[in-house]
Formats: sequence, C-alpha cells, structure tokens
Amino acid sequence: MEPVSSESTGLKFIALGGLGEIGLNMAVFEYGEDIVIVDCGLMFPEPYMLGIDVVIPDISYLTERADKVRAILLTHGHEDHIGALPYVLRELSPPIYGTALTLGFLKEKLKEYELDQKVELRVVKPRQKVEIGAFEVEFIRVSHSIVDGCALALTTPEGVVIHTGDFKLDQTPVDGELTDLATFSRYGEQGVLALMADSTNVEREGYTLSERLVGDAFDEIFPRCAGRIIVAAFSSNIQRVQQVVEAAKKSGRKVLLNGRSMIGNVQIARELGYLTIPEDLLIDLKELPRLPKEEVCMITTGSQGEPMSSLTRIAMDDHKQIKLEEGDTVILSSRFIPGNEKTISDLMNHLYRRGAEVIHEKVSEVHVSGHASQEELKLLHNLVRPRYFVPVHGEYRHLVKHSQLAQKVGLPKERCLLAVNGDVVLFSDGEAAIVDQVETGRVFVDGKGVGDVGNVVLKDRKHLSEDGMVVVIIGINQVTGAIIYGPDIVSRGFVFEDESQQYLEEAKKVVLDTLALVNTEVLADWNEVKLEVRRVLRRFFNKTIERRPVILPLILEM
Amino acid sequence: MEPVSSESTGLKFIALGGLGEIGLNMAVFEYGEDIVIVDCGLMFPEPYMLGIDVVIPDISYLTERADKVRAILLTHGHEDHIGALPYVLRELSPPIYGTALTLGFLKEKLKEYELDQKVELRVVKPRQKVEIGAFEVEFIRVSHSIVDGCALALTTPEGVVIHTGDFKLDQTPVDGELTDLATFSRYGEQGVLALMADSTNVEREGYTLSERLVGDAFDEIFPRCAGRIIVAAFSSNIQRVQQVVEAAKKSGRKVLLNGRSMIGNVQIARELGYLTIPEDLLIDLKELPRLPKEEVCMITTGSQGEPMSSLTRIAMDDHKQIKLEEGDTVILSSRFIPGNEKTISDLMNHLYRRGAEVIHEKVSEVHVSGHASQEELKLLHNLVRPRYFVPVHGEYRHLVKHSQLAQKVGLPKERCLLAVNGDVVLFSDGEAAIVDQVETGRVFVDGKGVGDVGNVVLKDRKHLSEDGMVVVIIGINQVTGAIIYGPDIVSRGFVFEDESQQYLEEAKKVVLDTLALVNTEVLADWNEVKLEVRRVLRRFFNKTIERRPVILPLILEM
Repeated sequence: MEPVSSESTGLKFIALGGLGEIGLNMAVFEYGEDIVIVDCGLMFPEPYMLGIDVVIPDISYLTERADKVRAILLTHGHEDHIGALPYVLRELSPPIYGTALTLGFLKEKLKEYELDQKVELRVVKPRQKVEIGAFEVEFIRVSHSIVDGCALALTTPEGVVIHTGDFKLDQTPVDGELTDLATFSRYGEQGVLALMADSTNVEREGYTLSERLVGDAFDEIFPRCAGRIIVAAFSSNIQRVQQVVEAAKKSGRKVLLNGRSMIGNVQIARELGYLTIPEDLLIDLKELPRLPKEEVCMITTGSQGEPMSSLTRIAMDDHKQIKLEEGDTVILSSRFIPGNEKTISDLMNHLYRRGAEVIHEKVSEVHVSGHASQEELKLLHNLVRPRYFVPVHGEYRHLVKHSQLAQKVGLPKERCLLAVNGDVVLFSDGEAAIVDQVETGRVFVDGKGVGDVGNVVLKDRKHLSEDGMVVVIIGINQVTGAIIYGPDIVSRGFVFEDESQQYLEEAKKVVLDTLALVNTEVLADWNEVKLEVRRVLRRFFNKTIERRPVILPLILEM
Repeated sequence: MEPVSSESTGLKFIALGGLGEIGLNMAVFEYGEDIVIVDCGLMFPEPYMLGIDVVIPDISYLTERADKVRAILLTHGHEDHIGALPYVLRELSPPIYGTALTLGFLKEKLKEYELDQKVELRVVKPRQKVEIGAFEVEFIRVSHSIVDGCALALTTPEGVVIHTGDFKLDQTPVDGELTDLATFSRYGEQGVLALMADSTNVEREGYTLSERLVGDAFDEIFPRCAGRIIVAAFSSNIQRVQQVVEAAKKSGRKVLLNGRSMIGNVQIARELGYLTIPEDLLIDLKELPRLPKEEVCMITTGSQGEPMSSLTRIAMDDHKQIKLEEGDTVILSSRFIPGNEKTISDLMNHLYRRGAEVIHEKVSEVHVSGHASQEELKLLHNLVRPRYFVPVHGEYRHLVKHSQLAQKVGLPKERCLLAVNGDVVLFSDGEAAIVDQVETGRVFVDGKGVGDVGNVVLKDRKHLSEDGMVVVIIGINQVTGAIIYGPDIVSRGFVFEDESQQYLEEAKKVVLDTLALVNTEVLADWNEVKLEVRRVLRRFFNKTIERRPVILPLILEM
C-alpha cells in the first residue's frame, strides 16, 4: 500500500480551531468537491487581549473554497460551538443542520445580527441521516451540560468518521436522553476509520457525576434555607433550570427568572418543549416584594462574577429591585471557569458582606461537569474501536493525555494523530497522516471591526495599560525649521498631573537639550528627531521614576 | 461594668491590612504610649492594577504616632508578612524581632534596598520572652509552609492576646518542629483575653495534609522518571527543597539549583543550619551537559508561570543552557495561586509541546497547604479558649466562616468580632468592642514612585488598555483665535494606522464641522471647545466602529 502523501486524494480533516485551546471549535471535512463544517465557535478573550469583545477562528481556508462548502453541522448550542456564526455567515451561507434546541438558540442569536432571514436552518433528529454531497451524516444523541446535543457519524467514500462533539455518559440525565451507545456500538461493529473525541476532562479520573446529583443537592439545601434562594447558572443549562424549578416547587417557593439571556433561553426551551414550568410557579419582579422571603427562588445569570451582570449588581447593593438580606442564600451552580476565580471570589465576598450565605461547587455538589472523564472515554474508545484517533476539544496537554489514554486501551501510538489547528489530516485507502498545514489563526472582534485589531495594536494597548502615555508636542516653522511651539508635554495614565509637574518640567528641558543638538534648520528628516526625543525621554523616565510610558512625539510643521 | 466606648482606655488592636484580603498582613497593638506592630506584608497587584509592581498598606496611622512605635514583630518570612518592610522602613525604623531564618531572609531583602545597616534586627527563639514597653511578647513555634514560623503571645495590662500568624498542625513536619500546643494550652489554662487566628483555609474540611506526604510522593515519582526531573517550588519553602534533595539522593540524581531567589534562599538556609545538602550532591550549569539525563534533578522557581522566570523560558525553548527533551518530567510543587491558573495552564501546555510530562497538585500529592483546615482550627480554639475572637488573614468570606466556626465550638456570637482593616478593636476591663475606624488603604508602588499612582491614573490606564488613544491637535493663533494648524489626528492602540485612515480622515471632518460652529475668534474658553471636540469624536467612533478610545484634544495657542 502506498503511504499517504500530500499528493494522495482522499478525505481531509482540518481543525480551524479547538485543537490546542478551549473554545473556537470548528472543523472541516473535505472530500473531492464537497466540504462540510462541524461547529463554528467563539472564544472569550484572554486577559492579554485588552478590549477585545470576542475571538473567532480565521476561515480563509473556507472563503477561498466557498463554492465547495455544502453545510455547517452543529453538535450543540454552546457559544464555543455556535458563537462565531454571526461573523462567519457574513462570508459563507450554506444551510445549517442541528437539533431543534440548538437551532432555536442559534436563531435567537441570528436575529440580533439581522441574519435570521438569510440563513437556512434545517432541523434534524438523533438517528436521522442526511445526504450532503459525498457525505452521509447521522446525528447521534449524547448527554452534555446542554440538552439536545449530538455526536456525528460521517460516512464517506474513505470510511466512517465519528466526531463526538462535547459529551459525557450520564446514566441518569434529567431529560432522560442517554448517550446513544447502541449507535456508537453499531458503527464500531461495522468498522470506523477515525474517531475525533472530546478531550476536556481527560485529566480527571473515574466517571463524571450525573447531572441528577445536582438536583439531589438542591433538594437537600432548599428546605433548610430560611431566606430567599438565588441560584446562578448558565442560561443555556436547561436541565439545571429544570432542576431548580423542581426543587423550588417541592419546597414551596415561587420562581423568578432574572437576566436577559436566562429569560430568553427559558422561553425558547419552553416553546420547544425542552423545559416544563407550571405557569403559576413563575413570578415577576413586581410580585417579589409581596412574597415572604422563604417562598422565593430566583434563577439568574452572572455566576462568573461578570461586572455588568445583575448578580454582581445585587452583590454590590446596586440593584434597583433586588436587595439582599441577612439569611438569603446564593448558590453558584456552575464551574469556576479558569481565569475567573478572582472575580468569582470578589463576588462571594460582596455577597457575604450583604449577609448572604454562599454555596458553590467547591463546598457542595451544586455543579457537575458536562464532559466525559477517563473511564467514560475508555468505554467510548472500546465501543468505537477506530482505526485512527484524533483527540479534539482541548488544550495541548489534554490532546497529549487523550492520545496516551487511547494507547492504554490498545490503539498503537502511530495511529494516534496529534494534530493541531491547521494540520491537514489526510485519510486515503485506509491509511492516514498529517500531510500539510493550512493557514489558521484567531481573529479579534472589537465592536464592529472584525480582524482589524492585530498583535501590534494589542501590544500598544498593553503598553499603554501598564505605564500610560506621554505626548510631546513640538511645532516648527515648515519653511525655516525653527521651533515655534513647545516642547509641550501632556500625559495620561502616567502620574498625577500636579504631582508630576516637576518630572514633566524636567522632561521638557531634556527635550530642549536634545533639540539644541540637532540643526533643525537643515535637517529634513523629522523622523530621526522623533526617534531621538523618544529615546532620551524613555531613558529619562526610566531613570527618574522607573517607568516606561508610551512616548508619542508629535512634530507639527506649521 | 461600663460598656467599652471610644473614650475608654485600654488595649487597641487595629489591622492595617490582611482583614478582608489575602496579603498585606500588618497589625497594630497599642497600649498607652506603646505600639508594637505584627508583620508588615505586601500584596502582589491584582489584574486591574495595571503596571503596578507591588501593593503595600497605608501606614499613616503609624507615621502620625512614630514616637510610640517600639518594635516590629515578625511571625515568619513570607512576602505577605515581611515584603512591605523596605518601603515602611523609610518612614519608621524601630527594632525588628523575629527568628533567625525570618531575619535572614529579611536581611537579604534589605541589602537590595541598602537598608540593612540602618535597621536593628533582633533574633529571638521560640519560647523566648521579650519585654517591649507595656508588652511582654512570647514567640511560640508553629508549623507552616516556611520553616521557623511563630505565633505570638502578647501579655498586656488588659490580659493576654494570642496572634497565630500563619500556621497548621503538621504532626510530622520535615524539620521536626511541631506547633507548640503545650504553650498554647498553658496560656489557655491561665486565661486568654483574645485570639487572632489564621482564616485562610477555613473553607476546607478536616485536616491539612502533612508536608511529609510530599516527600513520599517524590519518592514514588522520582524512580520511575527516565529523563531529567525539574521541580518548581517557592524558594522560601525550605522544607520542600530539603525533600527534593532527599528524593534526588535516594534515586541517584545530582541537584542543580536554578533561579536567583532559589540560589539565594538556599544559601541563607544552609548557612543558618535550616537545610542540609551534601556539597557533592550539588552541580552547576556547566556540569549539566556531562551528566546522563537520569542523574539530573533541578530545583527551580517559576511555578506560577511568571513570564520572566527561567522555567517559562525553558518551556518556551528560550533558555540558553537548559533544553527540555522527550521524557523529561516537570513537577509543579506549589499551589495554583488564584488568578494565575491561566498562566500556569499555558506553562503546562508549552512543557508538553517540548515533550515533557507535567505533574501538579491536581493529579498527585506534590503540594500541600501551609494553613490549618477546620479541624485544626477547632482544636486551637478549644485549647486557647479565648474570651474574644477576631478572625484574621483572609478574605471577607473567610472571616465570616471562621467566626461561624468559633461559634460552633462554643464562643457566643457577640464575642466574635468581625473586624476589617482600620477597625479599632478596644479591649478594656475584660470587655471588647469595635469603637472607631482609622484611615487605611492600599498604597501602590510603581517603580520608584510610592503612592503617587492612585485610582484616577489606574482608571486612565484601564481605559487606554481597552480601546487605545486618539490625540487631536489643533493650533490656533493666540492673538486672533484663528485656526492655523490642523486638526491633526494621531492614534495609538486604536486601529491599524493604514486601515484606519478613512476613519481618521472622517474624524478630522467631524472636528472641523464642530470648530466651524464655534466662533473661535471671540471664545476665550478653549476648555469648552476641547470638551465639545471630545464629545463629538466619542460619538463618532462609537457609531462608526463601536470603540471608545481615550480622546485627548490638544489646543495649542501659537
């Protein structure tokens, strides 16, 4: 058999995001003239991406092949799987396939961007098969921290490829929808060319706990709370909302929904039949003051301590209608997302200052993960028994660990392909290899600007943020070159204006001394003067107050 | 008995830092004309404190009473207990009392600031008593994540006050130095007026594990590593270093010390007899290439993923002498400090990219905390049985929880004083109350400037960091008021210069239109024009590209 090379034809798999990072999940499957895309997610900015709203994958590979793109397949409705669509759909607009709730959440998002009329959304059901070009796609039910999630089986001329999406093996899911192991087994028996599987929790031993345990925790906590209960959760976590509703009902509490996305997502889920709330259980803000404290349960967003969220405003005593009181209980029913620990910790301290008690995942079973742990992953590998394995959905160390796990259950090391974003994995005649690398990257979205803020701008922003800015203005006669204005110095974010007068005055002298050394009347190249001014000032500020502001010399020819 | 009021005389306790925050630990005990200070710590800046090097407590209360300050007592040598001294000693210079290692670490730090000759350091031993004005101070041995730590018993005319410093009840400490429960018991039997105790781990159930277990983990891990071993730990954690050394010796590895503070602290600890390393076990960088991989163990700093640390440079393949290879093992033997998780996660991914395996506290027992958990705290409360309890060393929620714990072991709620920084707790005739509030706060140190960067500057820096800056320059004739230059617009950290030309050109037009509306020739108040220019530009940029840069209009009278 010929080894696979970049000249071979066959099935290509290329991740445009999600391999070597959490977020930005987007994968391309290409066979001949047909491309299908799996998911299209965003990432929330990392701390160094100052002032960036969201990050999306670079889709140049697809825009250059727009005529081949047949479909976008969505595994589930989380932002890191559907959040980039409002931006990507400006450039591509193939039909989008997904389950009812996934497309319900997406539609709401597209309305905001006035894109809902321009895109065709095709609802599919688990075990339903769709023909798309060279691909036959089957949606396979999986349990996860959002309802209506699916894995995908793509039958191609090269063989069957299974992409798990995000999943766990919850044996007692709240909605009764189990991960469809029978279908995974059926494919496994028939023979699977490749498996791409969720690596998020590969560092965790054993099994991930069932969502149902969170309901048990609520049932244990609710009856012993004397005051109001506020549960903060992700608004997409419909099972969690269902469990709060059940616990509230059992303990004689009415439910108030709080937060725009919570209200919106609950409405969609109820309309589509994914969530059951008796109408008389719900109250609105106006009814709140009339109810005794022990009959109130609020469900809100803001569990990550987001500064603008209403939970943060409640904690800061800055919410018009909701005031915390001694004896109230706040349950943070979600994960502490890495990077947010400090903000969440501040939120908790503020809640305690208002007299509330706070319960969170580190002290009680009020949250469980939506991703499979080691034993679940091993079970899946053993059912699917793929010829090749490509770990997806994880930081680099997760991909390495998942590859090690696959080897533990028997896959030879050479059939574990440790691909990163942009790697072209080619499957040809039953063999596979990474044969090429295409351009990928992160595109920064800042307000309406998509992709016009790059690393240079970010570096400037970082620098500005650390030591502020000093602007030096010098006016020169454009005919004679004589200095007719300044040097004048203005600063921002550098030192207090009044306290820094002495430094700024001294800095002016330093600039004047520098200018005295250059014969401005014969020197045409003002850029050199600018560079010199910047250089001496940088040295001056570094020496006098050990700071390195951005120095911006402006030479104005008048 | 008279209730305590602000007119009563007696013993005052005032925290200048550390109550409602982790870090900045500094407490004042005042009786009549005598003040003793317990600890003098710093805090590393929080993410929003852009460009700040360190944070120290505001000591105005002490500088106004400098003639009363008799001593600074140090419980142990961690930065959050001694790190503010180089700044505070510029304003106050009483003698400093502490154990040999604590003062050894401090002396090294003072040398850097050329303060070591100006301050009197007085070495004390556990169970030693010192008379200082109205106070008799006894140092009491405690175990912690640094050796030579002590609690303090202050015998005053109002009674005995015990301050635990940072402690845990390690039953098998590496240096054999147990927390001196006998002395705590003795005071408890005699009667204790008040207890101030460490609240850091009050959220953790049970007991904190012994430092010795980390050694067991090393002994289990080291023999199965085929390549080199790199252990990253805090350089002040001398017990940890001792345990790495032991494990290296047992498994036939030589030890290389790496990182300036690691080398410095190890040298001090060896000189003072707190650390035993056979001379022939140590190697230096020159010897490294000659040794087989399986005979090398490095001990380094940089466990928090600090960007400039040598471990980060090793992980980025940017270290001159140390290159990672497939099969090397990196052990992160320290806590993931809240706020650093993302940086540590990035560090781990880079280490995996170089082919190394990474072991950390979440997957193996390679780190234990230095602070007492709930059962240890209960035991201490039951031994000391104070009349009053003031929880210290914790965020607000920790203080609340510690107060709840004290009540669980029998202290009435009204004798738990939930004080925050600046609260004056007055003990008078066996009674106590919070009677007053003095000025406290955080002082930002940025380079050589102490305290000249306040919240206004920080706000500017944050704003600059998010959307960059736009400078508008307009030159006017100072006699006629006619516009003779500009408007010219320069931006930094805003948009790419070339791509943004259109916006900046349009912005110029907007400014010109605005200026056309004001009669510059009669208007003397240029500030109004500036405000108007800022206002229209803010609206313009917000509308066109949804960004809010700092806008700095400069009107130059020429």
